[in-house]
Amino acid sequence: MPAMQTSPEPRWTPDFTALRERAFNLRWATVEPDVIPLTAADPDLPVAHEVTDAIARYVAKPHLSYGPPLGLPAFRDAVARHFVREKRAAVDAARVVATNSAASALDLVAQHVICDGDEVVVQDPVDFLVAETARRAGAVLRQWMPDGGRFTLDGLRAAVTPRTRAIVVCHPHNPMGRLWLPNEVQAIGAFAAERGLALVSDEVWSDVVLDGAPFASFAAVEGAWVVYGLSKGYALAGLRIGAVIAPSEAEAQRFGREQGFEHTIEGAATLSQVAAATALDDAREWRLRFLRHCESQRTLARARLARLEGVRLDEPASATFVLFVDARGVIGRSDEASLAASIERHARVRVVPGSPRWFGDGAAGHIRLSLATTTEILSEALDRIERAWPAILGEMRAHGAASSGDHGAKSTM
Amino acid sequence: MPAMQTSPEPRWTPDFTALRERAFNLRWATVEPDVIPLTAADPDLPVAHEVTDAIARYVAKPHLSYGPPLGLPAFRDAVARHFVREKRAAVDAARVVATNSAASALDLVAQHVICDGDEVVVQDPVDFLVAETARRAGAVLRQWMPDGGRFTLDGLRAAVTPRTRAIVVCHPHNPMGRLWLPNEVQAIGAFAAERGLALVSDEVWSDVVLDGAPFASFAAVEGAWVVYGLSKGYALAGLRIGAVIAPSEAEAQRFGREQGFEHTIEGAATLSQVAAATALDDAREWRLRFLRHCESQRTLARARLARLEGVRLDEPASATFVLFVDARGVIGRSDEASLAASIERHARVRVVPGSPRWFGDGAAGHIRLSLATTTEILSEALDRIERAWPAILGEMRAHGAASSGDHGAKSTM
Repeated sequence: MPAMQTSPEPRWTPDFTALRERAFNLRWATVEPDVIPLTAADPDLPVAHEVTDAIARYVAKPHLSYGPPLGLPAFRDAVARHFVREKRAAVDAARVVATNSAASALDLVAQHVICDGDEVVVQDPVDFLVAETARRAGAVLRQWMPDGGRFTLDGLRAAVTPRTRAIVVCHPHNPMGRLWLPNEVQAIGAFAAERGLALVSDEVWSDVVLDGAPFASFAAVEGAWVVYGLSKGYALAGLRIGAVIAPSEAEAQRFGREQGFEHTIEGAATLSQVAAATALDDAREWRLRFLRHCESQRTLARARLARLEGVRLDEPASATFVLFVDARGVIGRSDEASLAASIERHARVRVVPGSPRWFGDGAAGHIRLSLATTTEILSEALDRIERAWPAILGEMRAHGAASSGDHGAKSTM
Repeated sequence: MPAMQTSPEPRWTPDFTALRERAFNLRWATVEPDVIPLTAADPDLPVAHEVTDAIARYVAKPHLSYGPPLGLPAFRDAVARHFVREKRAAVDAARVVATNSAASALDLVAQHVICDGDEVVVQDPVDFLVAETARRAGAVLRQWMPDGGRFTLDGLRAAVTPRTRAIVVCHPHNPMGRLWLPNEVQAIGAFAAERGLALVSDEVWSDVVLDGAPFASFAAVEGAWVVYGLSKGYALAGLRIGAVIAPSEAEAQRFGREQGFEHTIEGAATLSQVAAATALDDAREWRLRFLRHCESQRTLARARLARLEGVRLDEPASATFVLFVDARGVIGRSDEASLAASIERHARVRVVPGSPRWFGDGAAGHIRLSLATTTEILSEALDRIERAWPAILGEMRAHGAASSGDHGAKSTM
């Protein structure tokens, strides 16, 4: 009898010529030809054919007129259904506003919710956009620090003062890859309500939840504002399509009036909305395959990185396709920017340094790697880093000694 | 011998089923089924096939990665070439920033140039976005009134005070359809320089210049900021693609940093940029045909409207595809919103009333009609208005008498 066969997972076949022309933001179109970028969180993988088919079908009727201020009905419906189906939140389409990317959504919600001079609590480390958009809205920031790699309610209580007006969270968390359990989401919501704090949740990573972990959106928490986008889970960064889930229909309408949507100042391209609605409605198989790929890439990368001297990995986290690597054992007296530069010089791989500019002070001594490429490219990048590691370590130690100057020299005597 | 034949202009064949699904902003998707909308300045005509072909070709390679912060090189180059070729301004691509529509560009430039409390001069009447974006930036507005239907330097001098910090102009002018001659553009630029005023020019209509009139962009004026978009001249409103032409490369970079482009908060969808670059580079024939169509629609509409009792038309203007109609002879003691409502009720045609909300106080007593539809639809709309005109006049006069109350009654005695 022949052995049972399961059909193997089809291979991802990116068009690297297209990526070298199209992938900016520290990626293929911006690096030297022999460098592998594991930088911006933007997959190298081809998008779902359902999405590109829908775009081609739409423009076969050659009309590209103004869309409605808050978004196409098909888009708003698709986002609402997606939250109901996957994110444990009974979102109605009337709460959804289409935006020119999740980043833009976060900025507009910050402008809407935060008044100049308000004290606002943000996680540290966290994606730079969380702190940056709050700062642009005039916030005075207070840091919520993790405790044993987790952001806990105790940590939040310690961060909040009587002057705090709002909390902005990143859920799932970039760069640490963690997500809160449904009961933790409820507890944070209850705490915010008890203290009368506005609550904003950046859920741009909520389509990249691994290991079958349960995801609960803050859209189920009364009064919370949620930001969503399709750049991570569907690889549509170039289309700049995201959404705000307002706390209610009335709040969505008010947001639309006050933030310029009613005046056509804000809004998302209709073609991007059509692509996004199709992704959410019809490309679920693509995304499930993508999530399995992210899981296996994470396993591969963790196993390989764990072998490197001076590198420490936290326990595996269940969201995002980035890996946040503790390299304090390598960096010594130098810094993460120098380490990233050394990796690029010796291994010809570019990573994102955990600098305050990208993730806040709490990211010091870390680097972040994006894993959303093919297994072949990721393996090649890890091979290169492993081969170059002695040279990188040597350079970092010499650099540390040099930059610590006389003190360093003395301590070796 | 057979008569010489010139090949007739091909007919425009819009897909009205698609427009009823796609054209929002007071248009086909929003009006009752028997109403013809001559409202938002968004053509009914099918877009150039070069544009839709380019979109389909682009997505045939299924990668939609992050674009560069200030825009794709192909887009920035195409906009710069377009200004050099058609707008008498030696614009370098390094000055161009891709934006999420011209409306968004105008808002961001206003935020960038205007400080809270600054006195800013704007035309009156003018497209509501000019005043609205300045107001959102914190401006205290002063009105520049037209003189005999023209905005003159004398009118500008009269509007400017020692506290004035900036001038925002609409060139060509919506809704009046006029454009300044090249020497007038220079004179306004020189006046702004002399008084140390920031100068912003909304040139979203600059691709719809008729009768072979010369257009000169303020991009040739030192220090001026220019806003541009492809919604009018190429019918691409749904793609939300526009641009800022900064005064210099350094100013473009600074604008990109301060207004969120460097942080991915602002930016335009890459697919929209690809479509726009193709329109500018390859769809010039489409646009020339479109401009000839706008000219003949204007001739048709002016001839028909001139027959209506109480309607006054200014001398023909050489830009835009909207007609601004003086109906003060009809309105009497009523208002332009009531006239628009009466036209919709009796003629089943929707027009834009010249209300302060849309065009400022200077638009009182006017209505605006968009002519960018087929000759058949425009003729049908004009037929309906002509047939209904006695009923509309009767209603407006009764309304005027009623709303003037006792005073009106007494004066007839």
